[in-house]
Order: sequence, then C-alpha cells, then structure tokens
Amino acid sequence: MDRDSVFWKIADGRMPPPACAKTLGMTFRRVDPAGCIEVAFEATPAFLNLAGHVQGGFLAAMLDDTMGPALVATLDAGEFAPTVNLAVQFHRPAKVGPLKGIGRVLLRGREVCQLSGELLQHERVVATGTATAVIRRMGADTWSAVEKPA
Amino acid sequence: MDRDSVFWKIADGRMPPPACAKTLGMTFRRVDPAGCIEVAFEATPAFLNLAGHVQGGFLAAMLDDTMGPALVATLDAGEFAPTVNLAVQFHRPAKVGPLKGIGRVLLRGREVCQLSGELLQHERVVATGTATAVIRRMGADTWSAVEKPA
Repeated sequence: MDRDSVFWKIADGRMPPPACAKTLGMTFRRVDPAGCIEVAFEATPAFLNLAGHVQGGFLAAMLDDTMGPALVATLDAGEFAPTVNLAVQFHRPAKVGPLKGIGRVLLRGREVCQLSGELLQHERVVATGTATAVIRRMGADTWSAVEKPA
Repeated sequence: MDRDSVFWKIADGRMPPPACAKTLGMTFRRVDPAGCIEVAFEATPAFLNLAGHVQGGFLAAMLDDTMGPALVATLDAGEFAPTVNLAVQFHRPAKVGPLKGIGRVLLRGREVCQLSGELLQHERVVATGTATAVIRRMGADTWSAVEKPA
C-alpha cells in the first residue's frame, strides 16, 4: 500500500470518488490495508426492477465496488487492478435504502488476485461474490494480458 | 410466452420500462420469443471508474438486463424469474456511449433456466456472461426456493 495512491487520496477525502461510486452512493466505513474493507451503499429508486427490488445487476455493481477497493487499498501509486471476472450469487431481494459491503483479498499475487465480497441489508446477506483482478501499472496497456487480438 | 405479460406490454410500449432499465438507457431492438433478444444500452458518465472506463459492475447490470429479458419474453402473465446467480467475464474496457446486448436462453426448464449474454461496443465484445434464473408465479413467495432461513 501507498498513502499517496489514488485509493487513499479518495478514502482520506483528498480526492473526489469516481462517478460510479457516487452513482451507487458508496462511502468508506473501514479499511484494513491488509485487504479487508467495509463500505456503505445507498440503493435508490433508479435501481429497481419491476418487482420493486434492486435489480441484481446493481447489486453486482455494488459488489464490484466492494471487492475492487479491498484490493486497490493494497496497491502502490501508479498501479491499478482491472477486474477480469465477477461471479455473484443472489440470496434475497434488496430494497431501496442503505446496504453494507464487506470485501476481502483472498489472494494477493504479484499480478493475479482473488477477491470475495458480501453485501448485506439490515444485517442479512443479500448477495455474495467472487472476482479475479490483475494488477497493472498506469501507462502500460491495461488490457494487453487479457484482451483478445482485434 | 403471453402477449399480455408485463414483458410484452413493455416491449410493445404499452407499459413504461422499470427504473433500472431507464437508468441503464435500455431499449429493445429485437425479440425472438423462443428466447433470443437484442437490446441497446447507453453508458453515461455516471457509470465511469477512475480509469474513465465503464465500471465492470455496470456492465454486469447491463448483462443482467440482457439475459433476464431473454427469458422473461418466454413467460406467461403472472410469472417472473429472479436471477439467482450471475457470472461475468470482462474482455475489454467500455466507454461512454451506446452498447449492444445479446441474450439467449440456453435451457428453458419448468423452473430452472440457464442464460447467456454478450455485451458489445462498436461491434467488439466488451463482456460476456451466464446466469441462472428460476421461474416463479406472482403472489408466491418469490425467494422461498432460494432464501435461507432467517
């Protein structure tokens, strides 16, 4: 980790969060630099499906924004870590209102990292997930290791 | 399928789309009632991460809103089909602008259904996914088959 990295600038309020985090109403609650994080989200009526529940995809977006930062907290300045896959299991419906995300780095490789996360509402699990991310350096071709030939 | 189902009312413009679809800028392009669908999305600046790409979770939300409707098009009135899991592979970054989703029903069981989807931008695949959904009847306890005891 590196206190001058973008992650810590945002977590410390020295930089604004990215637009996607604002859209999801994401705020940091606790950050363990060893790779565990607690964040909060706010589900709005804009996320609802026909059943009046938060569409599963928006829960997936929240899990992505839980697991990603757990890893990003461990990065040095100039590094970033695009997610290459994401798997989400939906446990029960979520409603408009606050949610809590808990993210963990299960494997912190030099490049390949394995992550897990849980999303809770009123202390009940609404969704769980896993993801794989790869660490890259800014300026390098981010996707060169994963992108297919054009 | 049932032309009086909520899906077809929305697809035919007789009912407004759900809020989550509006948020993702989703519109129907082609619907094959046998279980194949083409939809369009509009990625806005509100979906962007620090790298200036569409956050992967929002691509997952688009894939959920591609695969789900492919199945929902086949349902009778009074039926719905919550997604119980979703797996997404990210191929390359997506930018602000239009995307195309193609969803397919791989298995249309009486209850359990297996779905797949692709998300393209400028005719290049940006993400692929699979999902499992279970068919339920309105009024029944939606999640009774998947929800853990409280």
